[in-house]
Amino acid sequence: MRTAYIQQMGAFNDTLGDICGRSGVAMEKATNALLQADLAIAEEVITEHDEIRKLSKRAEEEAFTLLALQAPVAGDLRVVVSGFQIVADVDRMGALALHVAKVARRRHPKRALPEEVNGYFAEMGRLAVELAYSAREVLLTQDPHQAAEIEEQDDAMDDLHRHLFTVLMDRDWKHGVAAAVDVTLLGRYYERFADHAVAVGRRVVFQSTGVVPDEN
Amino acid sequence: MRTAYIQQMGAFNDTLGDICGRSGVAMEKATNALLQADLAIAEEVITEHDEIRKLSKRAEEEAFTLLALQAPVAGDLRVVVSGFQIVADVDRMGALALHVAKVARRRHPKRALPEEVNGYFAEMGRLAVELAYSAREVLLTQDPHQAAEIEEQDDAMDDLHRHLFTVLMDRDWKHGVAAAVDVTLLGRYYERFADHAVAVGRRVVFQSTGVVPDEN
Repeated sequence: MRTAYIQQMGAFNDTLGDICGRSGVAMEKATNALLQADLAIAEEVITEHDEIRKLSKRAEEEAFTLLALQAPVAGDLRVVVSGFQIVADVDRMGALALHVAKVARRRHPKRALPEEVNGYFAEMGRLAVELAYSAREVLLTQDPHQAAEIEEQDDAMDDLHRHLFTVLMDRDWKHGVAAAVDVTLLGRYYERFADHAVAVGRRVVFQSTGVVPDEN
Repeated sequence: MRTAYIQQMGAFNDTLGDICGRSGVAMEKATNALLQADLAIAEEVITEHDEIRKLSKRAEEEAFTLLALQAPVAGDLRVVVSGFQIVADVDRMGALALHVAKVARRRHPKRALPEEVNGYFAEMGRLAVELAYSAREVLLTQDPHQAAEIEEQDDAMDDLHRHLFTVLMDRDWKHGVAAAVDVTLLGRYYERFADHAVAVGRRVVFQSTGVVPDEN
């Protein structure tokens, strides 16, 4: 029973890691689509999102089967329950990458971003992808120390996001309200994407130690 | 066993309904704080949010105990698993009301909103509260027909949200970029709040019929 549980839990975490990795790839492509006003890449992200949705449903089924057939108890039961919550996080990361791609498509052939903020989004994109890959990694290794570090990686995202707002709020903003609205929403998508990667890290800490880390 | 399950599931749904109702109250107050630039009400929402967080944790524990002690199978097991997902939805609704209150506090003693868009937010607030109360209702009644109707109620929110953007994008927008950024984020908070109420409705449909409703 326990061997089957461990095996199925491993397979389930592989699926979660896969979704997380795909969300990272989607965010990387969506950022490129945004920065280059590249419609083809934006469309690619939008099409490939179906696969992420399918995998999320499969992950839920895997967790459900695990629960139904292995009937885990105590700590194992908590691990599976956290697994359901992780599905929601990684699925949402995919949806946020999709949102970014859709903004790029909506503004095409124009660029959604004024050149002045390109650097911010290039860097937020890089961080988002890095966070997704870290989350994938800890889903596979279940290493609580590595998982706890994801929260620190996110500090850089928060800093960038705050700076971005000072740029927007500056009297010298010359790009009009429409661009400001896009920049505001896009900034929020990257920040939320990062938050969900952090949530995955926190849940893995809980899964492997039984302790919920303090919120910082 | 089955009687105990039904009893505990009822208590759990009561807790979920309670959180949902409190999120509705929080959104109502937060909207008032926003429209009136009322710092005292904003602070109230911020303080009362702790209670919502506590109840969310209690709800998770209730679902967990149910799972551990009653060991539900088949349909009952799916119902409990959906319950965990509902906790996440109603908890997020509370967090979004909190975000609105924080914007009101941040801009105090000024109003965050230009008068031109007050009507939109008064109406989005009204709809958000209505949606939260509908979600609470169906959590308690478990009526799938009523639950399915929440999605239709949300159409009005989507319409308002779209109109709000046309106001923002209009060349005649005279309130500057800072106000546009606030309006953009606030609009998003109301829209997401409504989305989570819809998600609760969809999950109740699933709980009471075993079928996931189509996404519209």
